[in-house]
Amino acid sequence: MLDELKEEVYLANLELPKHGLIKYTWGNVSGLDSNKELFVIKPSGVNYDSLKPSDMIVVDLNGKIIEGSLNPSSDTPTHAVLYRKLSEVRGIVHTHSPWATVWAQAGQDVHAMGTTHADTFYGTVPCTRLLTQAEINKSYEEETGNVIVDTFIDRNINPNEITGVLVHSHGPFTWGKSASSAVMNAVVLEEVCKMNLYTKMLNANSIDLPKNLLDKHFLRKHGSNAYYGQGTHNI
Amino acid sequence: MLDELKEEVYLANLELPKHGLIKYTWGNVSGLDSNKELFVIKPSGVNYDSLKPSDMIVVDLNGKIIEGSLNPSSDTPTHAVLYRKLSEVRGIVHTHSPWATVWAQAGQDVHAMGTTHADTFYGTVPCTRLLTQAEINKSYEEETGNVIVDTFIDRNINPNEITGVLVHSHGPFTWGKSASSAVMNAVVLEEVCKMNLYTKMLNANSIDLPKNLLDKHFLRKHGSNAYYGQGTHNI
Amino acid sequence: MLDELKEEVYLANLELPKHGLIKYTWGNVSGLDSNKELFVIKPSGVNYDSLKPSDMIVVDLNGKIIEGSLNPSSDTPTHAVLYRKLSEVRGIVHTHSPWATVWAQAGQDVHAMGTTHADTFYGTVPCTRLLTQAEINKSYEEETGNVIVDTFIDRNINPNEITGVLVHSHGPFTWGKSASSAVMNAVVLEEVCKMNLYTKMLNANSIDLPKNLLDKHFLRKHGSNAYYGQGTHNI
Amino acid sequence: MLDELKEEVYLANLELPKHGLIKYTWGNVSGLDSNKELFVIKPSGVNYDSLKPSDMIVVDLNGKIIEGSLNPSSDTPTHAVLYRKLSEVRGIVHTHSPWATVWAQAGQDVHAMGTTHADTFYGTVPCTRLLTQAEINKSYEEETGNVIVDTFIDRNINPNEITGVLVHSHGPFTWGKSASSAVMNAVVLEEVCKMNLYTKMLNANSIDLPKNLLDKHFLRKHGSNAYYGQGTHNI
Repeated sequence: MLDELKEEVYLANLELPKHGLIKYTWGNVSGLDSNKELFVIKPSGVNYDSLKPSDMIVVDLNGKIIEGSLNPSSDTPTHAVLYRKLSEVRGIVHTHSPWATVWAQAGQDVHAMGTTHADTFYGTVPCTRLLTQAEINKSYEEETGNVIVDTFIDRNINPNEITGVLVHSHGPFTWGKSASSAVMNAVVLEEVCKMNLYTKMLNANSIDLPKNLLDKHFLRKHGSNAYYGQGTHNI
Repeated sequence: MLDELKEEVYLANLELPKHGLIKYTWGNVSGLDSNKELFVIKPSGVNYDSLKPSDMIVVDLNGKIIEGSLNPSSDTPTHAVLYRKLSEVRGIVHTHSPWATVWAQAGQDVHAMGTTHADTFYGTVPCTRLLTQAEINKSYEEETGNVIVDTFIDRNINPNEITGVLVHSHGPFTWGKSASSAVMNAVVLEEVCKMNLYTKMLNANSIDLPKNLLDKHFLRKHGSNAYYGQGTHNI
Repeated sequence: MLDELKEEVYLANLELPKHGLIKYTWGNVSGLDSNKELFVIKPSGVNYDSLKPSDMIVVDLNGKIIEGSLNPSSDTPTHAVLYRKLSEVRGIVHTHSPWATVWAQAGQDVHAMGTTHADTFYGTVPCTRLLTQAEINKSYEEETGNVIVDTFIDRNINPNEITGVLVHSHGPFTWGKSASSAVMNAVVLEEVCKMNLYTKMLNANSIDLPKNLLDKHFLRKHGSNAYYGQGTHNI
Repeated sequence: MLDELKEEVYLANLELPKHGLIKYTWGNVSGLDSNKELFVIKPSGVNYDSLKPSDMIVVDLNGKIIEGSLNPSSDTPTHAVLYRKLSEVRGIVHTHSPWATVWAQAGQDVHAMGTTHADTFYGTVPCTRLLTQAEINKSYEEETGNVIVDTFIDRNINPNEITGVLVHSHGPFTWGKSASSAVMNAVVLEEVCKMNLYTKMLNANSIDLPKNLLDKHFLRKHGSNAYYGQGTHNI
């Protein structure tokens, strides 16, 4: 079932090592079915070299396995929460990519410091708070999803405009309108995390991108007035 | 039309991913026709993997499309300004290469700190001011070209000797006597941005290259008395 | 003799250049026989390009050559000490991988600052003291093994939970339940050394990972209640 | 003439891009004939992709061309000085490799901070003073060689034990008993420059390697009592 989506999610998973976002099996990509009732995700701890499209696991939005003989990614409950609560998301990526993980370990938000950031993220990419002991004990991976969603609600951030987050002391999650779009957002987040760290080292007083440049760059690539590329771009 | 130039510009565009200057479609190269009335530029948002010479767009010096079915790079008006106002420029490159972008985000000029810089750039590579709200509203990409040109005029910098610039909070533009020469200058700028940042980290009191070494290295590779390589080297 | 183990150790040695952990011959991997009486190790100073499984040297737990026409790695006495004293270790890796070597040169322990660390190491990876003049004179490589073991005893660290160490001013040693598992631990140590250094640069006040997250991540991958991957994971 | 040496020098030149030491044509390797009267060097400004063994230029110890139709490297007079004055040197490398160039730009000596350094260099790799205006005017490349030699004489450094130098604000030169040995020393210098910079960032109070460890590591690989590898190792 869902063979086309499995192929798409499989290919998106292969993008992770290609873009240097992961070592070994430290990452996973999922993609949502068009009916928004099932999603397809990488099996847990399986090497990318031996991965096949048919290895992909089909689960429902509660993370229950619908099809597949392998264990799904241990982060499956996190993906499930995000699909349930972020209504326009169709693909999700989690990695321990080094630059984004550095910012997660430092517990810091990633401010827009340049147009590279603004081309993809419409403002600050937030870092969540740490999970509490109770949350870790209860259902760690599901609570990871909840703390992500709460961060966006509490700080009034639109997840269709800021398509990624850092989980404190852990690493990045990104999402998008498809599995491959979520991977692209993971690549951008990794690159801006690298560039912003060095920007701060070069000039400790570096300012955030002015709002007018943030608007210009985000809106020339996203939304109804976009004019970058050969067509329209959305989340 | 301009098939030879299209091939040249196509090949110069492929140099960008090869030298690690871009991710995805974050860059573009153009080249000027020998009559200096038309230039050829990469289409907007097209992947390098699928790019063909025939995809290149021919535009005039006002950025109007003369031939080509795809949208040209969204930065085309910036290229057009530079070709109109910098009379010896025959090729232009724009990227978001990380080290140069870090300096652009920090809003800092790149001083000559070593002979690697002096072999290509005859002094400080400037960083522009930020664009004003009015400039962003009016015609953002064209005004980006204008602020580049104004920076060289206001600071009395010769664009044939300093063949690149950082646009504040955005990234580098470089140029040269051909599309491939402009790419080479982009590679050098990226490398000196990396090396100078680390030089400052290692020794916060590092000095600029003395004028006599700057002269020696630039002039042994450029101008009528050049003796490096197998022939002459100009802009 | 031990042809299967030679092949395994040979393949594990090839992982070192593949993962960017070594230049030239700056590293070695060994693996212990199932009888725990002999181990197989790379020959000294032989290039990885020309290495063959049959070049591997068989030595006993005192480092005496049992089979092989080449000299074994000069670090063989260090491996021998570790196999004699760390009873569950079946594979050992030594490299001069740059990020771990930086921490060794700085003489600093590597604290758990994120879940990437906690997925593999159950707490701080220690840095040994410097060897004394007497230890260097006596039997340098053997004393290197002794100072590693003493560090774990003196600081009450379990070598089955912290499967690596930095030797002060020298570089990392890692170990595991097999040669390839020891290589994986070397890759993880290198990655966390890189990420932790930048974390400290980004936020000099970055905290260690809370104990509850350390427990959660280590124990979901290791021990009897592990649920990551497709089976159980131990040292 | 000297076909075997041309092949050796050609292959050693190809090692430079392979090890990431150069971009474009920013480096050169030479090798001395066994009679110590002629040396073979890369032509100036020729791309590595199109380089052939027969392109190598034969010059005498005054840098005069003996055979070859192309211009030799513009740094040929520097190589000539080193061959004339450092009697045991048989191969020389010059690059603008980024980490070593950073230290040259910072004008700082590279202290031995770890055993990686001590395995190759028996103490501090010096950075020269800047050349004077008179030296630049007179014969720049030859005076670059002279300032290198003077640095070793003035500071009483043995060039057979410290087989490299940083030329202030320029970049590294390394040498050895052959062209390929000189390349290996260039790789080591690049790696220790990278590691030492980060060591200082991690711990501003990092100490130099104690003399007893420096002796142990250098002498187990070099000189009459060497026991690393499968044979003897000298300069």
